Amino acid sequence: MVMQNMEYCLEDVHECSANYVPLTPISFLERAATVYGNKTSIVYGSVTYSWKETHETCLKLASALAGGSLLQISRGDIIAAMAPNIPALYKLHFAVPMAGAVLCALNTRLDAANLASILQDLEAKIMFVDYQSVEVVLKALEILSQKKENSKKPPLLVIIPPDCDRDQARISSIDNKHTSGILDYNAVLEMGRSDFEMVQPENEKDPISVNYTSGSTGDPKGVVYSHRGAYLNSLAQVSRLEMGEMAVFLWTVDMFRCNGWCCAWAMAALGGTNICLREVSARTIFDSILAHQVTHLCGAPALLNIIADSTTPSRLQMRPLQSKVNVLIAGVLPAAQVVEQVAKIGFNIGHAYGMTEVLGPAIAGPWRLECNSGKIECCNRQGIHSVWIPQVDVKDPNSMRSVPSDGKTFGEVMFKSNTLMLGYLKNQKATQEAFRDGWFHTGDLAVKHPDGCIEIKDRRRDIIVSGVETISSLEVEAVLLSNPMVLEAAVVGKADAELKQVPCAFVKLKEGCDQASPQELVEFCGGHLPSHMVPRAIVFGDIPVNSTGKVQKFVLREKANNV
Amino acid sequence: MVMQNMEYCLEDVHECSANYVPLTPISFLERAATVYGNKTSIVYGSVTYSWKETHETCLKLASALAGGSLLQISRGDIIAAMAPNIPALYKLHFAVPMAGAVLCALNTRLDAANLASILQDLEAKIMFVDYQSVEVVLKALEILSQKKENSKKPPLLVIIPPDCDRDQARISSIDNKHTSGILDYNAVLEMGRSDFEMVQPENEKDPISVNYTSGSTGDPKGVVYSHRGAYLNSLAQVSRLEMGEMAVFLWTVDMFRCNGWCCAWAMAALGGTNICLREVSARTIFDSILAHQVTHLCGAPALLNIIADSTTPSRLQMRPLQSKVNVLIAGVLPAAQVVEQVAKIGFNIGHAYGMTEVLGPAIAGPWRLECNSGKIECCNRQGIHSVWIPQVDVKDPNSMRSVPSDGKTFGEVMFKSNTLMLGYLKNQKATQEAFRDGWFHTGDLAVKHPDGCIEIKDRRRDIIVSGVETISSLEVEAVLLSNPMVLEAAVVGKADAELKQVPCAFVKLKEGCDQASPQELVEFCGGHLPSHMVPRAIVFGDIPVNSTGKVQKFVLREKANNV
Repeated sequence: MVMQNMEYCLEDVHECSANYVPLTPISFLERAATVYGNKTSIVYGSVTYSWKETHETCLKLASALAGGSLLQISRGDIIAAMAPNIPALYKLHFAVPMAGAVLCALNTRLDAANLASILQDLEAKIMFVDYQSVEVVLKALEILSQKKENSKKPPLLVIIPPDCDRDQARISSIDNKHTSGILDYNAVLEMGRSDFEMVQPENEKDPISVNYTSGSTGDPKGVVYSHRGAYLNSLAQVSRLEMGEMAVFLWTVDMFRCNGWCCAWAMAALGGTNICLREVSARTIFDSILAHQVTHLCGAPALLNIIADSTTPSRLQMRPLQSKVNVLIAGVLPAAQVVEQVAKIGFNIGHAYGMTEVLGPAIAGPWRLECNSGKIECCNRQGIHSVWIPQVDVKDPNSMRSVPSDGKTFGEVMFKSNTLMLGYLKNQKATQEAFRDGWFHTGDLAVKHPDGCIEIKDRRRDIIVSGVETISSLEVEAVLLSNPMVLEAAVVGKADAELKQVPCAFVKLKEGCDQASPQELVEFCGGHLPSHMVPRAIVFGDIPVNSTGKVQKFVLREKANNV
Repeated sequence: MVMQNMEYCLEDVHECSANYVPLTPISFLERAATVYGNKTSIVYGSVTYSWKETHETCLKLASALAGGSLLQISRGDIIAAMAPNIPALYKLHFAVPMAGAVLCALNTRLDAANLASILQDLEAKIMFVDYQSVEVVLKALEILSQKKENSKKPPLLVIIPPDCDRDQARISSIDNKHTSGILDYNAVLEMGRSDFEMVQPENEKDPISVNYTSGSTGDPKGVVYSHRGAYLNSLAQVSRLEMGEMAVFLWTVDMFRCNGWCCAWAMAALGGTNICLREVSARTIFDSILAHQVTHLCGAPALLNIIADSTTPSRLQMRPLQSKVNVLIAGVLPAAQVVEQVAKIGFNIGHAYGMTEVLGPAIAGPWRLECNSGKIECCNRQGIHSVWIPQVDVKDPNSMRSVPSDGKTFGEVMFKSNTLMLGYLKNQKATQEAFRDGWFHTGDLAVKHPDGCIEIKDRRRDIIVSGVETISSLEVEAVLLSNPMVLEAAVVGKADAELKQVPCAFVKLKEGCDQASPQELVEFCGGHLPSHMVPRAIVFGDIPVNSTGKVQKFVLREKANNV
């Protein structure tokens, strides 16, 4: 008798179309339409949609894009969009991949020159443009048409009309000279059929979207996400935000930022409700919370400033919230007073760390920035990685050895995860550099604590090397921000003949604090920091930020050396 | 200038070892050791382990299995285990795949003959055996050695010793004649090293475990799970059970059943606490709830009977629970009074539908079997599929067309999902049959309701075709069970010359109800069912069940025709 080989037996069982279905977040919408059909999917002003309606609209849009004679989109084509957090942009997150195409939601605050260079990089076939962005897009296309090296066909524009007739006039008679034609969003929708069979990804590793980095460290780069990564990170986001089926999500994070931290898809996975906003302000935030019982919102640290600002006596008089609202913040937290003010109103603040390349916030602490007997327990530890991220480590980038968990030794934060970008668009060199040695290099420096928490210290390029000391610019900034006169602070290294670098601070004072002197702040720092960390120079004035509000330290470094 | 091809640009970005990590639930344990290191992972009697300790033990076990000179396990080898829900079996769920091997946890209630034929099928190299199962295993191996067609090497046995010394004598001097040797579990553990680097799956589609079906419809079949399926279903289970980090899970579902419905891995994903039990009884359940603040448990419908039984005055006098405990039940619910009794104690009952091939419960309703003003809102709809299952449908198995969502039209429940088996072990024919037409065929009949809910009507082979009518045996059983004299009921089709089949009921009466007559029950059914559904014959007596407690209808069909 012949001995049967075990390996062979197990190889008999394998994937087939029934037990292997490419992971993609567009599957969430189909299920939401079945399971949560009549539940509210989107609220925008006085307009409300159900999940069934949203699914139908997305199918129509996808069918118009993929099936129409006018808009023949092929698998893998890029479709750009420039719009605020309105329902149309939300729906494009499903409709575009459902047509087999790749969505690139663009920063609405880009200027024409920057937009032109991104559009050149992107080569989108179609571009959806909110009526408020038509002007800058036409200007960018004009710039692009004048570039000698550019021979590509410009995109066809689909204009998303105003919410009300009042603004209708603004889009009449748009000059289509530098476009491949102009269509109205509603006309495109009417071309579509809701019985369209959506285009499934051939492979779950196929791209689903491109998100541009903010360019705080150089030129913006197009970061490509896969269906698989987006699927897994959407579900990870559900658990990071601790959202359930009853979640009501207020769109305060830009959808063009990591696809709204993947929340665009996550909300369909939950069958929750999206509260769309054209404009984020203290008033729209509090009005929405009151009107729609918002349970979750998230965004950049500036969101806390917006909310805290509203509590000053001269502004809106905010009452404490009726129920807890979770707000997840990614990035360097503002001054402790700000966090405290927001917590006092009743917000439950979570702190996360992430970036475009890791599809948004990747590491989040437990929700512990709660107002505890009037005092915020605000620690700067970004916490722990979710179960969707197999490996996070802090490593010496040269030896690739893990740093000890001593809360002291600096290393670079690195990831191995399915919730990472596929790579940078048309930039193999940067992709290879980011993924060298089999890990994604974040460029951020951190320490590991004995309890497993990671504490981000600084961007690698922002760290200040002074003699034998390594200074975290963030730590100096935190001390400056704790001074009641300081509104904003940014610290960079200034060249020094003896020590290589010394810290130099740029400070914007609060209104009515113009009497402050640099010497006063230097002394203040001296009382809270070891001497080598105290800024040698303090410069008052506005601090330059890019289109997403991040400080442009490369500009400040230049300035510092001329102080 | 050459036009650059867009497709090419997107192909530049692709997976690498940093952004593509095979999905596997063993990754949960590594993270739990970092993030929840000192938190309690397992409680068993007076013994308590932390996640760090559990991780270390699993690494040692894996290293002993994969690295030792004695137990040289290669990738893809099968390791069997026969043990109740004790910590050792829990740890094998990680240690075995961490050694690159495939775990098969076997039903502890199998008799020697059935176990022998499964072991012949399985060809395990090593078998972990709880001291209480040594006898049946040795007997099975003896049977196997006598089979002429068997020329395989028997497994090496690793004996898991008793929890206390009292039983130690039972495993001294075990006869190793029909084995490849006998080792002690603790001796194996001591061979291992905790600095072992776990074996990662080469491909996420590699097998991680084999789970045998209960064989209610024929011979038990070995169902092979993949790392990918187990990973996704573990996370799905977290959301089905609505478990958070603070979950305390009581092991009332057998670990040998779909790897404890994938909860073995799910608990590590959460960093929750496992309460292990050697024996499931009303007393151990209530004691554990009291001692450990259990938040979740799950199991077969019989679990409800065990809990309800304890409330009868003659037994334990149970007080209402201090806090809500979620209990998820998969299968046909027992009589409404039973469900009501359990809900009244304070259990929050969820109802699910699943099977070994879909890795446990796949469809679950919202938690709605709550005791509502004394009355259970107990509907038999199994609810909705989770977001981890891309497609569930009820289809005509011949035309493969979806049935209308009218709550009336019967069809077969079918799945397309990553949380499905890879296939049946050494049974390509059955695998192909189950996956024909690109869908997994469950063999269960159901209707779809307009709200998207699926209601299971019966096993396809248990449906009774009477004239032009289709009778769900489950619906007749439900009516019989609602009679206060009936303890158990099973209905099958009995051959009929005129109508093809007529319903025939087998009934076990409650203690003290022997005075009931068949005629009385027929009349009772007549008052609650249309005439064609009323049983033509009623037989009193014990109802035959298999080793997992499922009714053996094929035995009853045989009997019915001889009534």
